Amino acid sequence: MINTSTKVNSFDILLGKIKTKRTCVGIVGVGYVGQPLAEATSEVGFRTIGFDIDQAKVEAVNSLNKNLLSATNNFEKLSESDIICICVPTPIDDSNKPDLSFVENAARNISKHLSRGQLVILESSVAPGTTREILLPILEESGLKAGDDFFLAYSPERIDPGNQEYNLMNTPRVVGGLDEKSTELVKSFYQSFVHNVLGVSSPEIAEMSKMLENTFRFVNISLINEMAEYANARSINIWEVINAAATKPYAFMPHYPSAGIGGHCIPVDPYYLIDDASKIGVTLRILSQAAIVNESRPRKVVEKAFELVNGNGRTDNNGNGKSAQPIKFLILGISYKAGSKDTRESAALKIWRVAESMGAQVSYYDPYVPKLNGWNSTKLTEKIIAEHDAIIIATDHKNIPYDIILSSGKPILDTKNIFRSNGLGRVYKY
Amino acid sequence: MINTSTKVNSFDILLGKIKTKRTCVGIVGVGYVGQPLAEATSEVGFRTIGFDIDQAKVEAVNSLNKNLLSATNNFEKLSESDIICICVPTPIDDSNKPDLSFVENAARNISKHLSRGQLVILESSVAPGTTREILLPILEESGLKAGDDFFLAYSPERIDPGNQEYNLMNTPRVVGGLDEKSTELVKSFYQSFVHNVLGVSSPEIAEMSKMLENTFRFVNISLINEMAEYANARSINIWEVINAAATKPYAFMPHYPSAGIGGHCIPVDPYYLIDDASKIGVTLRILSQAAIVNESRPRKVVEKAFELVNGNGRTDNNGNGKSAQPIKFLILGISYKAGSKDTRESAALKIWRVAESMGAQVSYYDPYVPKLNGWNSTKLTEKIIAEHDAIIIATDHKNIPYDIILSSGKPILDTKNIFRSNGLGRVYKY
Repeated sequence: MINTSTKVNSFDILLGKIKTKRTCVGIVGVGYVGQPLAEATSEVGFRTIGFDIDQAKVEAVNSLNKNLLSATNNFEKLSESDIICICVPTPIDDSNKPDLSFVENAARNISKHLSRGQLVILESSVAPGTTREILLPILEESGLKAGDDFFLAYSPERIDPGNQEYNLMNTPRVVGGLDEKSTELVKSFYQSFVHNVLGVSSPEIAEMSKMLENTFRFVNISLINEMAEYANARSINIWEVINAAATKPYAFMPHYPSAGIGGHCIPVDPYYLIDDASKIGVTLRILSQAAIVNESRPRKVVEKAFELVNGNGRTDNNGNGKSAQPIKFLILGISYKAGSKDTRESAALKIWRVAESMGAQVSYYDPYVPKLNGWNSTKLTEKIIAEHDAIIIATDHKNIPYDIILSSGKPILDTKNIFRSNGLGRVYKY
Repeated sequence: MINTSTKVNSFDILLGKIKTKRTCVGIVGVGYVGQPLAEATSEVGFRTIGFDIDQAKVEAVNSLNKNLLSATNNFEKLSESDIICICVPTPIDDSNKPDLSFVENAARNISKHLSRGQLVILESSVAPGTTREILLPILEESGLKAGDDFFLAYSPERIDPGNQEYNLMNTPRVVGGLDEKSTELVKSFYQSFVHNVLGVSSPEIAEMSKMLENTFRFVNISLINEMAEYANARSINIWEVINAAATKPYAFMPHYPSAGIGGHCIPVDPYYLIDDASKIGVTLRILSQAAIVNESRPRKVVEKAFELVNGNGRTDNNGNGKSAQPIKFLILGISYKAGSKDTRESAALKIWRVAESMGAQVSYYDPYVPKLNGWNSTKLTEKIIAEHDAIIIATDHKNIPYDIILSSGKPILDTKNIFRSNGLGRVYKY
């Protein structure tokens, strides 16, 4: 009886506090997901504390000088929060296995300071079951019981960096609580700053919805790369094919070839699913082959670049690194997407690595990334272009003077259809 | 010089005739693609002749009693046409190899009666290169030269039977001629009755655009079936997951699970691509695995249905057909899509075949298909339902009294999410 009344009280109290903005929101991890969330919650009137072990991120939040928003690396202040959002990275390791250590560390920190009536929300992309099977047991090490003493839910972030149309507020939000009360609380919380919030019947549904979204992207980008390889073999311009298919007004969505999928999310999440499926004995055939296609792209691009150079009169190097004079590639665009300085999982970096392993020398030009791992973005002059054997366009930044590259007469491997016209001299679409 | 002037004259003459509707249009194959095309061309003022070896199709066209439109099985009348559209089937054989015999036969008939200044258009779905490598040589057996004496183009049909929003007129059309003059003529022709026509730079681009559209559908439906199998193993309702993911307003398109892809187009076209790619040494990994997933669906559905029956107390049959009392399945919906009587490539038929091969007895109910291969659609009464061990919903027709099935207490394998609520007694979503 005591438990039941505690439960009801906690729920009513927290719901009331959310509706009147008298809750304090703690956000664990204030990177590219947590920081905009912290800005949004503080802007609508919640006192908000950001938590991060990375002092640079803490300072980035504090330097915003926003009312109601502060950040700290002192996790003891978690006890001041009524709502705790976990926005930590969920990367994969070198063998493509999920690395949940950030989630687990966040959970342990929260568990230490967990108190009755708090609501914990996981926003990081995870395999179905993670909230219930990984997060919940760590939180209950506190001695408190989910559903009775505290509330727990999963709600995937849907941040698309650089998207001008859809942001935190106008992108619908999916929420799945461990129980109905958790769902109701987490719905009410997000409804404070998100226009549309959909409650689903479990954390697993919400977890898998995020996996499905990113798996859809991953498979479709890999599929168009597979189609591009076929089209190349048939001397068909895949970009013109896609534009033609895209005139179909229903049942089609265009995706575009690339040197490989980049960024923090799409190239990572499917491995969570592959890993979990293999644990329960389910073979994800299509997804696994999509992963193979995606992983093979950078090497195929580099091989094609070597081919272009050798076809251009340089026959002293076959890509085995045994030439006296190494082939020099200039990569244009090193970040993972146009207009961004973010180089995480960038296909351009993979091209760089593969090209070096095959004996080439690599320079790069990227107006958004002046320095990278001790290297500098080169200047884009006629003289510098002339020092290279071929140019690989890896990212389609808008503000690059492509004319100077075209007029250089060097072979250009155009993986992003920068040069739309067909038959432009040494431009090879890939 | 004679050739050049003939060419220019033929082009100008045909273009003028198209613009003033003084051309006669011949349509070879007046099935579900050719018949609506014939109706459209005759409605906008072209004298139109339909050709078919199937007398029933010829009569179907003639019974429309349309002005300017007639049909015949006499291919000699092809010589009356200025424009000839090929709308014949391009099926696959039992080993999933393309069967181009209908295209080749049509081409031979046309070749026999080909005359100077005619425009030939292929609309059937084919692998890239088919217009140039298969159709063109047969037509040139006439002694006439494409480009000089006659014009040749490819333009894929985009018929979606039952689509209430998009029809022949308001679905954009892709056209690719063998040369610029062919493209211009074919553009002008379709612009007479289609709102938007996109000219592309070759028949191959147009051929592949159609392959890409259908490959997109094929892979995405197979992918969602793969996801459904994972979700089933995890006891996650995939339909709720899809609805949640579909709230994402960009970069996602929902597809839905099924017992397998049906119809005349989507389940067939990818095999054209797989076949052609293998000929030129390209492995289509993702597409090949999608094909395996799709082909395995009917058996998985049947196995699940056996499981439901055995879990429902019938333990005398394990699906090996050795039981004294065969299990009886009732399949609801036998056509390949809701609201249609078309049973081509229907997954329901595959379920039927697999179930029988595993020792079950099968009846079906489909208000659109009263008779099929000597069988009759059963009546849907309490008594008849009671005679079956389980019900498999294969197609989501709207006008089926699902309540009577639900109240029967029999296990229901709901492959189309007819029963939206969770936890409905013996309803199993798949």
